Amino acid sequence: MKLILDLDTGIDDALALTYALGQPEAELIGVTTTFGNVTIDKAVKNTLDLLALLNREDVPVFRGSVFPWGSNSYQTTDDLHRVHGLNGIGNVVLLESSKAVQSQSAVDFLIESAENFGEDLTIVTAGPLTNLAEAIKKNSTAMSKVGRIVMMAGALTIPGNLSPFAEANVLNDPLAAKFVLESGISFTMIGLDVTLQTMIDQKDIKQWQTIPTNAAKAITEMTTYYYTNEYSGEEFGGALHDPLAVAAAIDPAILTQVLPINLTVETTGPSIGRTIGDLTGLNNPIKSAAVGLAVDSTAFLEDFFTITNNFLMNVKSI
Amino acid sequence: MKLILDLDTGIDDALALTYALGQPEAELIGVTTTFGNVTIDKAVKNTLDLLALLNREDVPVFRGSVFPWGSNSYQTTDDLHRVHGLNGIGNVVLLESSKAVQSQSAVDFLIESAENFGEDLTIVTAGPLTNLAEAIKKNSTAMSKVGRIVMMAGALTIPGNLSPFAEANVLNDPLAAKFVLESGISFTMIGLDVTLQTMIDQKDIKQWQTIPTNAAKAITEMTTYYYTNEYSGEEFGGALHDPLAVAAAIDPAILTQVLPINLTVETTGPSIGRTIGDLTGLNNPIKSAAVGLAVDSTAFLEDFFTITNNFLMNVKSI
Repeated sequence: MKLILDLDTGIDDALALTYALGQPEAELIGVTTTFGNVTIDKAVKNTLDLLALLNREDVPVFRGSVFPWGSNSYQTTDDLHRVHGLNGIGNVVLLESSKAVQSQSAVDFLIESAENFGEDLTIVTAGPLTNLAEAIKKNSTAMSKVGRIVMMAGALTIPGNLSPFAEANVLNDPLAAKFVLESGISFTMIGLDVTLQTMIDQKDIKQWQTIPTNAAKAITEMTTYYYTNEYSGEEFGGALHDPLAVAAAIDPAILTQVLPINLTVETTGPSIGRTIGDLTGLNNPIKSAAVGLAVDSTAFLEDFFTITNNFLMNVKSI
Repeated sequence: MKLILDLDTGIDDALALTYALGQPEAELIGVTTTFGNVTIDKAVKNTLDLLALLNREDVPVFRGSVFPWGSNSYQTTDDLHRVHGLNGIGNVVLLESSKAVQSQSAVDFLIESAENFGEDLTIVTAGPLTNLAEAIKKNSTAMSKVGRIVMMAGALTIPGNLSPFAEANVLNDPLAAKFVLESGISFTMIGLDVTLQTMIDQKDIKQWQTIPTNAAKAITEMTTYYYTNEYSGEEFGGALHDPLAVAAAIDPAILTQVLPINLTVETTGPSIGRTIGDLTGLNNPIKSAAVGLAVDSTAFLEDFFTITNNFLMNVKSI
């Protein structure tokens, strides 16, 4: 399976990247980047530096969307700085990568890969849906050939995390999200419904602390930052949002309940960013979304730590 | 199976009543009434008169809640009058029943029946959850013995019908709904998610027009009123909300997808009446709600018309 990760490279994106690189079944052919947890510049830099840390500088990185549809600026908030640190990776300072971002745009790479690999291509988005929306808008024929699109986005049966209605990746670009969800392109939605079922705590992270590689040290440090009490509201711990999307892309059976549904996104009013069933598509037998509603979190957490432990143990960091 | 229907007797309640009376597997041991589609007085009168029309005056009728929790009045709206008519049953004038409402209250009858029949008792609510909330509040031990509680209420994966967030039965008493949903009592939620998958149109109703009984004539007339264009926004037709709750009570397999979840209800703000997953119960393995998300609507509609046709054909109206 060819895999593209679309990341707004904050901390759980870094975990998703590590987890994806450790998957024997997946060949990561590129990382596209977007604003979101961080600005686009930081997303590009963090991705390049993380790939260097993880000794996978061969993976090309593509620069993507700078700001949301209908807007001409994007600024990260104090809340985001608290969650992901000022630099997006928990204020951990990584060695700078010697590689440059690709000259091809994220959108063109998505389209070219869709054309080249079709059914064999899986795209996992972990940020706002802007890159994906632009790729579909530019060439929906190509994008409809993609084997599988899995997005960490939205909340259907539980409240949002940026508002009582909206999950962050959707609220960061509701217009792009609405475009993607209504485009007819098939996708799997890994929303808060399931990601909040994948909670880890301090003792889970301790597994990495004994691994004597620079990569393990840095990943442990940023993860520890992410799961401190300011984020979760509890003592320590939180959900593996982005990694779960990778898991569902590699092994869809990790989701123990999935709802086929046609979705829309509210783009105005107090519930802006709400992902909700589209009434006009309720009785259409063709459903474009498969929304994860339950997950075998025990199996997922075991797989996540087995794969990341193994990968971090064997990585030859620069 | 012993069955109690809890009705705010408007038109789809009348259909649910007819459908329930035609079920060979269910013994209707009583109808409890509530404000909702109509005032409590009209709910009682309509229920008594419908039971007379359907030649089942042996079924006792109990007077229930007069207004929602936290309120001391209840008035029906112009919208409700448009949907259900001024008298609640499409302005169809029925012969007046000779029977009186029971002296026992709806709440006490629910509790007494729970104690008498336990596992063998099924309660179907088709109106606000006020009677059920009061019964649980008064005697949760008894009410937890009830075999099955099925409620036509709420909307989880699609917008509401009284607001973008709220379904009418929940919005008519959000405090009572919240109390029931958070009580720990197990229930099946038949919300708009599935009821809006059970659409009928004019040709479906025509099946009853050839049946030469007064009951068929009256039921056809009120149903025609209900499904005129002012309600559905389309030419003619709409959903079988309350009858679907009866179907799911008799044959749970009619639901082809059900989500186990713990739910809450929002009771303030613009989204008052929203039924949504309770974050505090997300990772509790015990789920009190089973929310219908998909239904075999072909099988349901066939069963509904087979049973109602047969019942209306054979009823000896007064």
